[in-house]
Amino acid sequence: MRLSVLRSACRRLPTHPGRPGVRVGGLSRGCLTVPAGPANSRLILRTASATTTSGAADPESSAKGGKQAPKEDRFVCHGSLREVVQSTKEAMTALQRRSSAVQPLLAIIQAGEDDSILGINKEMAGKIELNIIQICLAKDCTEDEIVEEVMKLNEDARVHGVYLHLPPGSLTSRVLNVLKPEKDIEGISDLNMGRLIRGDLSKVFVPPTVRAVLDLLEKHDASLDGKTVLLVGGEGPLALALQCLIERTGMGALKSNWSSNSLQRQVMQADAVVLLGAEDIDVPPTWFRPGAAVIRCGNSVVTDENAVEMPSMSGLEHLIAAYRTQNVVHSYSRWLQEQQYRPWRLHSLKLQPMTPVPSDIEISRAQTPKAVNQLAEEIGLLPQELEAYGRSKAKVRLSVLDRLHTQPDGKYVLVAGITPTPLGEGKSTVTIGLVQALSAHLKLNSFACLRQPSQGPTFGVKGGAAGGGYAQVIPMEEFNLHLTGDIHAITAANNLVAAAIDARMLHEATQSDKALFNRLVPSVNGVRKFSPIQISRLRRLGINKTDPATLTPQEVSNFVRLDLDPAKITWQRVVDTNDRFLRKITVGQASTEKGQMRETGFDIAVASEIMAILALADSLADMKDRLARMVVGTSRSGKPVTAEDLGVSGALAVLMKDAIKPTLMQTLEGTPVFVHAGPFANIAHGNSSVLADKLALKLVGRDGFVVTEAGFGADIGMEKFFNIKCRASGLRPHVVVLVATVRALKMHGGGPNVSAGAPLPQEYIDENLSLVAGGCHSNLKKQIQIAHLFGVPVVVALNVFKTDTQAEIDLVCQIAKECGASDAVPCSHWAQGGHGCIELAKAVNEAACTPSSFQFLYNIEMPITEKIRTIAQKVYGADDIELSPDAQAKIDYYNQQGYGSLPICMAKTHLSLSHMPDKKGAPTGFTLPIRDVRASIGAGFIYPLVGTMSTMPGLPTRPCFYDIDLDPVTEEITGLF
Amino acid sequence: MRLSVLRSACRRLPTHPGRPGVRVGGLSRGCLTVPAGPANSRLILRTASATTTSGAADPESSAKGGKQAPKEDRFVCHGSLREVVQSTKEAMTALQRRSSAVQPLLAIIQAGEDDSILGINKEMAGKIELNIIQICLAKDCTEDEIVEEVMKLNEDARVHGVYLHLPPGSLTSRVLNVLKPEKDIEGISDLNMGRLIRGDLSKVFVPPTVRAVLDLLEKHDASLDGKTVLLVGGEGPLALALQCLIERTGMGALKSNWSSNSLQRQVMQADAVVLLGAEDIDVPPTWFRPGAAVIRCGNSVVTDENAVEMPSMSGLEHLIAAYRTQNVVHSYSRWLQEQQYRPWRLHSLKLQPMTPVPSDIEISRAQTPKAVNQLAEEIGLLPQELEAYGRSKAKVRLSVLDRLHTQPDGKYVLVAGITPTPLGEGKSTVTIGLVQALSAHLKLNSFACLRQPSQGPTFGVKGGAAGGGYAQVIPMEEFNLHLTGDIHAITAANNLVAAAIDARMLHEATQSDKALFNRLVPSVNGVRKFSPIQISRLRRLGINKTDPATLTPQEVSNFVRLDLDPAKITWQRVVDTNDRFLRKITVGQASTEKGQMRETGFDIAVASEIMAILALADSLADMKDRLARMVVGTSRSGKPVTAEDLGVSGALAVLMKDAIKPTLMQTLEGTPVFVHAGPFANIAHGNSSVLADKLALKLVGRDGFVVTEAGFGADIGMEKFFNIKCRASGLRPHVVVLVATVRALKMHGGGPNVSAGAPLPQEYIDENLSLVAGGCHSNLKKQIQIAHLFGVPVVVALNVFKTDTQAEIDLVCQIAKECGASDAVPCSHWAQGGHGCIELAKAVNEAACTPSSFQFLYNIEMPITEKIRTIAQKVYGADDIELSPDAQAKIDYYNQQGYGSLPICMAKTHLSLSHMPDKKGAPTGFTLPIRDVRASIGAGFIYPLVGTMSTMPGLPTRPCFYDIDLDPVTEEITGLF
Repeated sequence: MRLSVLRSACRRLPTHPGRPGVRVGGLSRGCLTVPAGPANSRLILRTASATTTSGAADPESSAKGGKQAPKEDRFVCHGSLREVVQSTKEAMTALQRRSSAVQPLLAIIQAGEDDSILGINKEMAGKIELNIIQICLAKDCTEDEIVEEVMKLNEDARVHGVYLHLPPGSLTSRVLNVLKPEKDIEGISDLNMGRLIRGDLSKVFVPPTVRAVLDLLEKHDASLDGKTVLLVGGEGPLALALQCLIERTGMGALKSNWSSNSLQRQVMQADAVVLLGAEDIDVPPTWFRPGAAVIRCGNSVVTDENAVEMPSMSGLEHLIAAYRTQNVVHSYSRWLQEQQYRPWRLHSLKLQPMTPVPSDIEISRAQTPKAVNQLAEEIGLLPQELEAYGRSKAKVRLSVLDRLHTQPDGKYVLVAGITPTPLGEGKSTVTIGLVQALSAHLKLNSFACLRQPSQGPTFGVKGGAAGGGYAQVIPMEEFNLHLTGDIHAITAANNLVAAAIDARMLHEATQSDKALFNRLVPSVNGVRKFSPIQISRLRRLGINKTDPATLTPQEVSNFVRLDLDPAKITWQRVVDTNDRFLRKITVGQASTEKGQMRETGFDIAVASEIMAILALADSLADMKDRLARMVVGTSRSGKPVTAEDLGVSGALAVLMKDAIKPTLMQTLEGTPVFVHAGPFANIAHGNSSVLADKLALKLVGRDGFVVTEAGFGADIGMEKFFNIKCRASGLRPHVVVLVATVRALKMHGGGPNVSAGAPLPQEYIDENLSLVAGGCHSNLKKQIQIAHLFGVPVVVALNVFKTDTQAEIDLVCQIAKECGASDAVPCSHWAQGGHGCIELAKAVNEAACTPSSFQFLYNIEMPITEKIRTIAQKVYGADDIELSPDAQAKIDYYNQQGYGSLPICMAKTHLSLSHMPDKKGAPTGFTLPIRDVRASIGAGFIYPLVGTMSTMPGLPTRPCFYDIDLDPVTEEITGLF
Repeated sequence: MRLSVLRSACRRLPTHPGRPGVRVGGLSRGCLTVPAGPANSRLILRTASATTTSGAADPESSAKGGKQAPKEDRFVCHGSLREVVQSTKEAMTALQRRSSAVQPLLAIIQAGEDDSILGINKEMAGKIELNIIQICLAKDCTEDEIVEEVMKLNEDARVHGVYLHLPPGSLTSRVLNVLKPEKDIEGISDLNMGRLIRGDLSKVFVPPTVRAVLDLLEKHDASLDGKTVLLVGGEGPLALALQCLIERTGMGALKSNWSSNSLQRQVMQADAVVLLGAEDIDVPPTWFRPGAAVIRCGNSVVTDENAVEMPSMSGLEHLIAAYRTQNVVHSYSRWLQEQQYRPWRLHSLKLQPMTPVPSDIEISRAQTPKAVNQLAEEIGLLPQELEAYGRSKAKVRLSVLDRLHTQPDGKYVLVAGITPTPLGEGKSTVTIGLVQALSAHLKLNSFACLRQPSQGPTFGVKGGAAGGGYAQVIPMEEFNLHLTGDIHAITAANNLVAAAIDARMLHEATQSDKALFNRLVPSVNGVRKFSPIQISRLRRLGINKTDPATLTPQEVSNFVRLDLDPAKITWQRVVDTNDRFLRKITVGQASTEKGQMRETGFDIAVASEIMAILALADSLADMKDRLARMVVGTSRSGKPVTAEDLGVSGALAVLMKDAIKPTLMQTLEGTPVFVHAGPFANIAHGNSSVLADKLALKLVGRDGFVVTEAGFGADIGMEKFFNIKCRASGLRPHVVVLVATVRALKMHGGGPNVSAGAPLPQEYIDENLSLVAGGCHSNLKKQIQIAHLFGVPVVVALNVFKTDTQAEIDLVCQIAKECGASDAVPCSHWAQGGHGCIELAKAVNEAACTPSSFQFLYNIEMPITEKIRTIAQKVYGADDIELSPDAQAKIDYYNQQGYGSLPICMAKTHLSLSHMPDKKGAPTGFTLPIRDVRASIGAGFIYPLVGTMSTMPGLPTRPCFYDIDLDPVTEEITGLF
């Protein structure tokens, strides 16, 4: 047996210096080794041997007569004890084989430092190698103190059972209610008692005393089946539990009081008698019926120091202690079970679609989402893995990945699209409709992993991004507004870097090396030392010193001067607002900045490199490393300057520590959704986070599905998903769902221009099979082929609009299959929710079972230019690429800096496979011009610019915000869509 | 009796058009009026009259013999029924007198549409005017469907009891566990059963059937006390509850099965027999003992359509229904009770201060905060009033104010300071130490209301603002970082206004009136109409039209053109970062902005007018109105242009809808803290929010304390607290705590300059009584006098440093009292926590009991100039004020626009009572120069500028962020202070 002191206990109650053990104020905590003194539980067990044969029929005569009293023998319970210990030990060994990392632990809370209680429990625990911790409160401890200890043990994952060895008066409602039922191995909490009474034994603990008495009754020589057991003196719930379980075995159970007038009659009639409580009162042996079992059961909970030592303590009290350890092992087993992957118990929400389909916010508001902790419980998350943000959203801790690391991943589905019209073709709604169909209709576990939208478009021109119609994430306003603050955290982190850059340039411009050094490495209480982040910089500079005093003047200068070239700062500030006037600005114009003004600009927050890092990081450590590596500009001598050089990388990690946890929400049908990260799809890779996908793949289980979406058309979003995101994550996709609309296909087939705000030309309203066929044979076919380049099967999802005719729908599905799609199905999720995507869900499920042979498009070690050319030719259909001199120079510079083996993140228009937005279908015969090449070193990719990319949208004349309003009484939002 | 259909039920299950009632899919919900058909509960009640006298002694003979069977009489239970109905009705009337707003409601969930169950419950409910709603699920409804309905009823605050009238097989563990115990009026949940068994009747519901049977047993003519009741056929928890309660009355209770061999013997021995369940089996009348009470109790839960109608249904089943309604009324009563103010049950956290005092982050991390929902429960908040943000912080809903509107406010304490050194004198730590002392040591309810700090200083030069040492808010890193996102929301809202301004100017500059009108009021599906926000603008323009087509060209022009003067835009952008290079910038330099560049700047986010509004708003409606009123600039014709003119005010309210809820946290000793709003103390009023104070004043109760802090010295923070914040809130302060340090007093007494970063001169380290006396007689005395101007008593809190000598401490306290302070006490909270502030707490408690006669310094209707002069003369000690021509012109303009009766918010240095930072003590003989005057119309004050105020701090050469780091494994933060 191992006795251990909990570390946390020591930390919570700091030890006084020089004083061993934990003993603070009135509290004492620790594991005390106790001598084998007299045991304290007073359980006596006797059997009345038969001496009369007619006792029951004439109680009066048998009680009063001078007949020989039944001889009381000690009940032989060693057999039971051995069996209990043996089976518990075997269970323990089997469990420890499954998980050796955590050992079960019994915590005993007692009032006073009397160690006698520990003896017998220690002996039993020793037999099965169970750890025990004993917490000694003051003899006169208050309810508050008990509650505080219980709460600590509740929270302590290492404790599997709590034995409240306290006077009955201390076991108040509050104490009993605060103890977690799953640690209540004494079975004394109300909830446990209620479950026991109702007969729901799945989560119950049978009180050890009850178990022991039952055990003895059942093992009694004479069969007691159908006979009556009299319980004398039992008042508390324990006696009631005993009564209930006795009755459940088929015996009758009657309770009586010590003071009852009819006690003698009742004893005489009973086939077995259990004497509870008042030990001082003795029952004349003559009262017992011959052959009756008699069990004396003292108050085993409170020790009485004046108790007379009983002739043998090796009986019931050992059995009770053995059952106590058994309950701890049960609890441990349930805990281990809880740590395992658990099948979902998803309770989907009913949908009653209306016609015509109401506005998105109306649909969202009409559905009451499940409480997020309920959803989390349904999908097998543990309460401690959740950080709720209000009622309907919660961050999920990354520790889930550790807990489920042996769990096989589910299937990984990417939703991509054909080249869209400027109106968008509904990838998000398909993603949500698909998981609604999979989870709520086909009962296949599924998770949607979505990008968090920028507030810019929400208040600008696009509106929300939570899906639409009956395929939405709810509450949609939470999704579209602050959510859990990740984008705000990115904004804060990004702008801290920017402020650090300009401030540093000012300080370097206005101070000598020595002054800078004195300020950067100040003397604090006479001691001058480098911070860890400064040591890192010294290492990068090749200076292996730790004592500031030993740096040479040249080293000091190298250390203090980042010497940033103002013309070569690539870091921009960000806001999450469509603020076009910040695209190009001059900063530093106040006189306090001493003329250090320069031109720079703001991007929308989601264009920040920090957003791309959030999306690609696979752990907190990885994110921190990436943040430190971010290059913010170049020194005058041509060296890259990083966030770590600025001394800001630790602060960035601190600002981002919560943002790294994905946010759990739900669809309209109550199925789970992760919302996490939302990098731009042109200058970044346009995919939600690696971590959300990884968490979701564990949670859905082997046969479940994780459906995620890539921004823009498949030529951009999907290509980056495969070559950048899958490369970073190591995950392999099973199926691509390619979303098409008749509208976009007609456009690719030669239909007139489609633009936002203008009425749709008639071709898009009337049936036009030849335009549809044209689009299918050009853009749809090409996008299917692109997916096949990566070896992944494609299911085409035709997002049906009410103007689409059956002939058009049939034609698309037919040609799609001819072009190599595994299947092609129409979807009506917008109007019908998951029900409208059932066929798609079935097709995806089928396609996921076909073998896929995923491969990257290019080897990461290929030269940058070759990687760009490969994408241009194989994906876009270009003849070749043409690098501008700037682009070539940048590539040379990146090669020289060792950035050559990063993947490529093309920044190209999403409106055409080519670089020319008006070239629809599948253009050929063009050369892709590479205007410039940039790098996100922290995120880990090189991004060639094809044409001009706006990283800051503008507001239209009448932005969305004109319609957005809040009712201050109902708090209902209107006008969000 | 009123039958009502729940509105929310209708909304949740939308009705098909043209179809009355709520009946969708397999579900039907609504209140059906039922005919008085045959009742369904089958409870028969008989009494066996004595016919034999020897039955029990010889069961065989009495059973088999031909003796006359006992005559079965109907038990007369009308007496009981009348009593129950009468007492329930009286209880109901009394409760409704207390609260007529909410009526109690019983919800019945049943399988199938059989309405018979409703009859008897309707009749009983009718007698006491209880509302009933009946929810009919499909006969074969699934567990999921039941759970969904139960969850809806759980959430529905109008439902006070749920009767699950379902087949026993449907009452699964899951169903029983999901029902909230406080609505389980049938008493069938495990938790209820456990409580009942244990005898904790405070929250329990006794199952109505049990109550009815007990009632009859107790009213039986022959006293049953000490006798035996036989329960035949009871298996479920109901029988066990009955058994338990029978035993508790002093009777014995034995259970038997219908199949038991000894049934006859048991029946014959019983003084009373309750026959449960199997109604088809009959017990020969001859078995019963003479005089035995016999109660036949069918399965009252499931109706059986084939049941034979019983001769009289006016017996037990009515009694059961009556007890059901009684339980609903109990539940309603408990609910009403819960809505009332509840005394605190605060469980404070133990503190074990260490010497030397560790760093702030180490102290914070060493303490495990209580879960925020536990803290909320302790201070009387209801679960639905809380929105948790992770484990240790939560937003509190404003509905608390409605719930507790009749509750008297607690006492209101302001912590202000003498004129500080640049190092600060510890107002925040005194505030936190004081509440720790009040709550955790003196057991007087208290709340600290603090400002949320900007992230700028946290990463810049000041560090955190969560207090320090052993007087902190924990977890301090949560306090200092994103908290619950309020500042981020302000940033987003502020910058949306800015983007709207520049975009609007661009659009007006580049479009005709007609084009603007067509875009601002677009035709949607052929219909053109104004949005509500546009209607508001039309009204302000004096155009009382609603049809866009009817506007004259001049009206169109007036409507579409805000005609903002670029030189007179007062709205700045904000970031929550110390980014000095944004103080003055030029925006709009990209070619896309067509040359519309202009000079502007960024402030730190907390300087936004929206922050001031958040701090002063007293409801969501008030905040929305203030946001709409904000003036962002002036038109070329000199008219103020508001946020509502920009069409953005609804969106601002939406962005701020969560920010308006204060955030609940806790001190190191587990006492409650609200963190809410943190406006600048110079250009704004520097006080935390009105709403947090109001909520806290209700929560602490009449004898409790709310302690809040005002920024800067009392001449600024306190003056604005009184004249601006108290004027807005209507709240009246009881005590001012004036924080002083020996260090600052020595400075005011003539000590040398104190500046951040430089070592302290020796005068501040050695004892120097004459400098101390000088400071007391100048600055301390003057600040006490200022508080007295407002009629509020002052307690001086001397924040003791370890270099302070006893003589210095004594001297300060002595002079302070001579200068009129009610009391003056030294405080050592930084080193000792609340324990170090006990004397202060006692002094504050005493001072709060002295009568105070609060008055404002000036009448709001005085001319602006007079109000400024009053503050300058009476508070600062100036001879007079001197207005610059700009200032005078602005005052004239504000008067002309009707802003003349707003309070004054002086923007003055905090380092001196005068406008000259180096004039310490209590300067006199100066004229206060007013350089400029500005207005925050939404926030509601005029702010004169005395000297230059920086609204954007800078970063030092070595900002705090150099030391801030995150351990990616433990997730622990270092370097925050």
